[in-house]
Amino acid sequence: MKLWDKGYTVNEKIDKFTIGKDRELDIYIAKYDVLGNLAQSKMLAKVGLISTEESISLNNALTDLLKEINEGNFIIEEEFEDIHSKIEHYLTIKCGEAGKKIHTARSRNDQVLTALLLFYKDYCKKLTQLVEDLFDVFIKKAEKHKADLLPGYTHFQAAMPSSFGLLFSAYAEQLILDLYLLEGVFKTIDQNPLGSAAGFGTSFPIDRDFTTKELNFSNTLISSVGAQMLRGKAEKALSFAIAQLAGTLSKFAYDMVLYNGQEFGFLKLPKEFTTGSSIMPHKKNPDVFELIRAQCNKIQALPNSLILTINNLPSGYHRDFQILKEILFEPIIQLLDVIEITIHAVNNLEVVENKIDDPKYNNIYTVENINQKIQSGVPFRDAYKEIGLQVENNTFAPQKNFKTTHIGSIHNLALDRITAKLKQFKENSEIYNFLKG
Amino acid sequence: MKLWDKGYTVNEKIDKFTIGKDRELDIYIAKYDVLGNLAQSKMLAKVGLISTEESISLNNALTDLLKEINEGNFIIEEEFEDIHSKIEHYLTIKCGEAGKKIHTARSRNDQVLTALLLFYKDYCKKLTQLVEDLFDVFIKKAEKHKADLLPGYTHFQAAMPSSFGLLFSAYAEQLILDLYLLEGVFKTIDQNPLGSAAGFGTSFPIDRDFTTKELNFSNTLISSVGAQMLRGKAEKALSFAIAQLAGTLSKFAYDMVLYNGQEFGFLKLPKEFTTGSSIMPHKKNPDVFELIRAQCNKIQALPNSLILTINNLPSGYHRDFQILKEILFEPIIQLLDVIEITIHAVNNLEVVENKIDDPKYNNIYTVENINQKIQSGVPFRDAYKEIGLQVENNTFAPQKNFKTTHIGSIHNLALDRITAKLKQFKENSEIYNFLKG
Amino acid sequence: MKLWDKGYTVNEKIDKFTIGKDRELDIYIAKYDVLGNLAQSKMLAKVGLISTEESISLNNALTDLLKEINEGNFIIEEEFEDIHSKIEHYLTIKCGEAGKKIHTARSRNDQVLTALLLFYKDYCKKLTQLVEDLFDVFIKKAEKHKADLLPGYTHFQAAMPSSFGLLFSAYAEQLILDLYLLEGVFKTIDQNPLGSAAGFGTSFPIDRDFTTKELNFSNTLISSVGAQMLRGKAEKALSFAIAQLAGTLSKFAYDMVLYNGQEFGFLKLPKEFTTGSSIMPHKKNPDVFELIRAQCNKIQALPNSLILTINNLPSGYHRDFQILKEILFEPIIQLLDVIEITIHAVNNLEVVENKIDDPKYNNIYTVENINQKIQSGVPFRDAYKEIGLQVENNTFAPQKNFKTTHIGSIHNLALDRITAKLKQFKENSEIYNFLKG
Amino acid sequence: MKLWDKGYTVNEKIDKFTIGKDRELDIYIAKYDVLGNLAQSKMLAKVGLISTEESISLNNALTDLLKEINEGNFIIEEEFEDIHSKIEHYLTIKCGEAGKKIHTARSRNDQVLTALLLFYKDYCKKLTQLVEDLFDVFIKKAEKHKADLLPGYTHFQAAMPSSFGLLFSAYAEQLILDLYLLEGVFKTIDQNPLGSAAGFGTSFPIDRDFTTKELNFSNTLISSVGAQMLRGKAEKALSFAIAQLAGTLSKFAYDMVLYNGQEFGFLKLPKEFTTGSSIMPHKKNPDVFELIRAQCNKIQALPNSLILTINNLPSGYHRDFQILKEILFEPIIQLLDVIEITIHAVNNLEVVENKIDDPKYNNIYTVENINQKIQSGVPFRDAYKEIGLQVENNTFAPQKNFKTTHIGSIHNLALDRITAKLKQFKENSEIYNFLKG
Repeated sequence: MKLWDKGYTVNEKIDKFTIGKDRELDIYIAKYDVLGNLAQSKMLAKVGLISTEESISLNNALTDLLKEINEGNFIIEEEFEDIHSKIEHYLTIKCGEAGKKIHTARSRNDQVLTALLLFYKDYCKKLTQLVEDLFDVFIKKAEKHKADLLPGYTHFQAAMPSSFGLLFSAYAEQLILDLYLLEGVFKTIDQNPLGSAAGFGTSFPIDRDFTTKELNFSNTLISSVGAQMLRGKAEKALSFAIAQLAGTLSKFAYDMVLYNGQEFGFLKLPKEFTTGSSIMPHKKNPDVFELIRAQCNKIQALPNSLILTINNLPSGYHRDFQILKEILFEPIIQLLDVIEITIHAVNNLEVVENKIDDPKYNNIYTVENINQKIQSGVPFRDAYKEIGLQVENNTFAPQKNFKTTHIGSIHNLALDRITAKLKQFKENSEIYNFLKG
Repeated sequence: MKLWDKGYTVNEKIDKFTIGKDRELDIYIAKYDVLGNLAQSKMLAKVGLISTEESISLNNALTDLLKEINEGNFIIEEEFEDIHSKIEHYLTIKCGEAGKKIHTARSRNDQVLTALLLFYKDYCKKLTQLVEDLFDVFIKKAEKHKADLLPGYTHFQAAMPSSFGLLFSAYAEQLILDLYLLEGVFKTIDQNPLGSAAGFGTSFPIDRDFTTKELNFSNTLISSVGAQMLRGKAEKALSFAIAQLAGTLSKFAYDMVLYNGQEFGFLKLPKEFTTGSSIMPHKKNPDVFELIRAQCNKIQALPNSLILTINNLPSGYHRDFQILKEILFEPIIQLLDVIEITIHAVNNLEVVENKIDDPKYNNIYTVENINQKIQSGVPFRDAYKEIGLQVENNTFAPQKNFKTTHIGSIHNLALDRITAKLKQFKENSEIYNFLKG
Repeated sequence: MKLWDKGYTVNEKIDKFTIGKDRELDIYIAKYDVLGNLAQSKMLAKVGLISTEESISLNNALTDLLKEINEGNFIIEEEFEDIHSKIEHYLTIKCGEAGKKIHTARSRNDQVLTALLLFYKDYCKKLTQLVEDLFDVFIKKAEKHKADLLPGYTHFQAAMPSSFGLLFSAYAEQLILDLYLLEGVFKTIDQNPLGSAAGFGTSFPIDRDFTTKELNFSNTLISSVGAQMLRGKAEKALSFAIAQLAGTLSKFAYDMVLYNGQEFGFLKLPKEFTTGSSIMPHKKNPDVFELIRAQCNKIQALPNSLILTINNLPSGYHRDFQILKEILFEPIIQLLDVIEITIHAVNNLEVVENKIDDPKYNNIYTVENINQKIQSGVPFRDAYKEIGLQVENNTFAPQKNFKTTHIGSIHNLALDRITAKLKQFKENSEIYNFLKG
Repeated sequence: MKLWDKGYTVNEKIDKFTIGKDRELDIYIAKYDVLGNLAQSKMLAKVGLISTEESISLNNALTDLLKEINEGNFIIEEEFEDIHSKIEHYLTIKCGEAGKKIHTARSRNDQVLTALLLFYKDYCKKLTQLVEDLFDVFIKKAEKHKADLLPGYTHFQAAMPSSFGLLFSAYAEQLILDLYLLEGVFKTIDQNPLGSAAGFGTSFPIDRDFTTKELNFSNTLISSVGAQMLRGKAEKALSFAIAQLAGTLSKFAYDMVLYNGQEFGFLKLPKEFTTGSSIMPHKKNPDVFELIRAQCNKIQALPNSLILTINNLPSGYHRDFQILKEILFEPIIQLLDVIEITIHAVNNLEVVENKIDDPKYNNIYTVENINQKIQSGVPFRDAYKEIGLQVENNTFAPQKNFKTTHIGSIHNLALDRITAKLKQFKENSEIYNFLKG
């Protein structure tokens, strides 16, 4: 069944091709389309376009449907091209004439867009909760291993003393920065497009602010033409934030892969978390971190894939937008898995102690020796040259006792300030407001 | 001169290759590196690592340098590998021993990062101002042309009546959404990394909060390891926001190109704004909009270029980060030009009136005819079928009189609410706070 | 079952995450892994690592399996992590000790790579056949519509007379250029990696040239370390060629969408090939071409997604490569569908005649008028100015009679030479050699 | 001066914006535009559109200009918008009426495209020569270090014995595969578009095959509409091949960075090839390889940047194409530098011997121990389990004596076959044919 049936049959191959993966992908937004229909029905009654009885009938049918979806029993049968046809058909069966009226003052364009935005908002909520869980794990690990040193690397070369406290707290703090971006994204998509119809509004006396409140949007996207521009823009915005987050996780996973190898050997995964080789019995590979890395890298390609697919289209709806679902839905759900598995793996990571005492790392203390010279009055550049000469002549004697005091240094991780930074964000965040609401 | 001179000469080819375009590109950040040095000098004096006299001497020399840079006379000579070597050399000449001490408790890593972030923050300020200027132009145009109709298109096909009021106000409102994202970016980069040194902190008793205030950062990036992660993350964040904005401008330019052609013909650029053909004397091409489009599309590729260049590097500094300047600096400056030229072109756009009256557009009123049937009690789906049949049989008589009432529709653009949306954003925005400050 | 079972149980969540979509995706390469096993078994017998009886037993079991796969009844059960474990298990059940020996002198790394390359080679074959089919359709259409003119556009503006003959033959010829690139790709992937084991060879006296011949590879990838580099490189190469091809199809689809709209109106799809609107009964949207365009644009993002996922990894196998299957398999299969549907749609396209006679297109004849002046002795630049003035003063009288003679012009399409270009390519092409073989 | 001057002045800001970086970038194609003009002049004379005297006059002037360009004294003055206006103006000054006729039967569209393709072809030639130089260096290094072992890594973990012979020869062979792709690209761009004019041909009786021969193109791009499609397609094709090559170099550079660090320590760059740290006097960073890597990664983003800029444009010229020069020209020239510096660095790389003897690498011999068990009759899977148990119980005694025989293994690098593979390619390659010609 098609919403636009005109009495002729679409060519079968064309029909199959244009429907594509809609039936499969629309399951993700089924719940949100029902919510959109509920708000639409109430609004139509409020402005008198349908009767109260019709509205009640529609609301009851939709509430039943919502229950069915939440129970996981919902499917879209072969006879429907998408979730929207299916629901309208269902309403027509259940509510008769009222069902035929639900699409009044609405187009599939604003209907789909509304469901998508509700889905994305809910996704942002879930994502934020998981990110906060991961933040907590990183802070906990940083606290636990604050005294565990390892060489800090620049250019893949041992540079200066660092610590697992610094490393884990660094990633915790990065997550806050990633949430800043997600907050910007959330505000971009927290805009009600319902009522913009096909992108040019309608002459029905609808009440757009009513559906905005009903659907728990913070804003109404005013311009009907602009509302259509959210299609694509919303997806891009979301992809930017998750790409940024994926970049953080990918870097973390790279560190973990590296530090698990023989060469560095600073960390150990329990063997149950590793994978073997089909021919080398000694291998215990950190595949889980390699796959976290690769999945996150795949996700970092999303912004580009989305942009490329819909770029250089003038304003107004184009069918091309349908393909955004194919590109976006699966990877964003995968990202939730990736964060969960990261939490699981980090919780089980073991630090190998005292690796830093290996004499091959002696040179990482040169900066400390220089600092002591400076404290005794030698200008920095002169001290630098002197110690450099000692290294060159193999006469360098590392000063391994040192004490740092500034925030964000080995002996003053200031975890409380990092935690406070997240807390402050949460207090002013619309996404957290939505999360709690 | 190199900050890390060790008494041997670097191979000439290697030297040239590793310096690359630094001398040319560092001009962009010269001013900000001076500001960073000023804060560093004051902080070193505050915690007693240099004397008050030394600090005054350094501050005076740096203030002179800032004046020189602002006057546009500043260059980086061939003998320096970058701006940072140049400034340290200058300070050593001007201030003697004090100059040799400026690098105390600092590394080139945090020094460069600080200058970059200050540059990006200033850039966000300029960009926001220009975006607001363009917003104003769009609102003004929307107001002026609120009664000028044109066909609204979906699938490149005339669909329903639209108006230039709807179109221009749509783009105005999109700019607000783009600023939401920029705000998230601004918060990400408004983090002081100074004092994180090479990425592992320092044992000197520095006061990082002091430089945070001195440099007008809202936050200190606590973890020294995390501070280094801003390199790359800051650039990516910025590129996301400008890609989103560029996507809006590109779509607008596409509309303009299309509407300037013979086929659509809804708009006209003054001939002085068009470009001719080398063989076709009748051509007046809208090249300015084509180039706005192409530049904006080029800019939309930035996030990907940045990600690809620095992805899959473990934590810690890598020289690869240098190339980010090559990728980012020129295009972001070009974007400012693009917005200025867009403002210039939009200000001069002329609307060709009454094109919508062409009978070929009669069918765009089908929805209106359906709506009238619905108002008289016919269910939507039945009305849809009836009018569809009329179109099929060429008996359709368009109902061109219609009146819309809802916000964001042709006869109720609600420009005041769009303007209020921007105003509300400005009141709570850290970027606007910085802009005013 | 795992090939590398070591007597401990992998953590369940980790196991699920690391297996990912392998079971589902490995169906694509099942057939090719069987072929690889067949060649391996024969080679092991040839060099004496297994007995002739063992080889015969393995070959029979593998031949049965191949039949099962070709019949479409093959699945990979939950108990296996991938196709390779499944097949080895199957062989151990069927052939006993011989089954345990099949993995001698081989690693999963070269085994998987071999199966992938065989799959890609077969894919190139299918793709080439479809491209040639589309080429034939374009040539046929060009021949049929060689006398049907339409305005040629530059800058979205009517520029000069063009024809459907020129347009369709242009796309035919572009396909040949796209095949040139595919040929380069084919040579890149037509390299046998079997025997490189985990990427460092083996001390068994294997005969790599034997499996090269057996598997119908043109070359052996000599360096065992280099063989592993094909993982990722092969996928990138393939993605480049299909991105180039997708770019051609996307442009064609854009033309078709544009020319199907009211504004241009040069072409018409049968209504059975169009899609309607949920609220506008007059709409007959060319969704099929919009989706061809979007799918092709999605495909053009593949090179980047692949590069980003595996870039910045040092030599040697990494588990990250597994994700390439997730990125590549589905879209390349979709591309075959896209070409088929394009052929189907082009076959049914109808040209709307004589649209070019609309007086609004008069100016496209200015170049013709200039040319006639030049033929009578006026220098080009002077003639250009004179006609330009006529257009400006509305005194231009178009010269609609013209005759072109050069190859590739309206009246001399030289379709035979385009066809000959493809023929010449086919004669020297390794991909065609493989296709016929 | 503009080729399309119509007697009104273009708005100054618009003029500056639309010219953009053309004057600067057109220097790259100056030589090739002169060559295109020469062929055009000769062809016009041949078909009688200009006289022999006019042609001689034009040829002389153009030959002088070519000399000036080759001597490096050529600039494009502020008064010209691009190279093409400059040359036409020059010819008009030098040759009078003949100069005004040079643009007969040509448009700037085919003129620019011709110059670009000639430039790209020449670039392919230079690139190929450099790639072959690098190939030779890799082969030489492989031969020299064929007995120098190092651990081979998978998953960043020591896996099995490998050798520098295997490693260097792997990269040599990869370069051949990269040339296969470049060959496909070369055939794509070795197509003469001259005579296609604005993309719709001309009614002048031009001889397109004549300019094909004159300009040393192997083919004529027949369809005039298709010729314009080379704009963008040529750039994309070229970018694919150089991205593939850059991917090879980036991976090599990553290996070099890794192996130069303390952890791996298998290689050493002379100190003159390294770079220091501003605060750590012991650092000798392999910046040259980090920058090779980053530049190559930047280059791998080119295909995407190009696609994004011009995607979703219908057939026919658009001004957007101008921006391709901004994106492509500088990076492709940088790539030549990158290869030269790679050759320079590899030539100076020193192998640190016997690092593999460190007991921490003992486990990399497990496969060898298994192989010996197999040779004595134990099935592979059983041997695998037995050795695995030894590793687990710390009773594993590595068998370090082993001998490989198959091609592409440690003791049989088969460098002659790799060299023969390149030789065979060269014999049938059109790019080499052009290179020699």
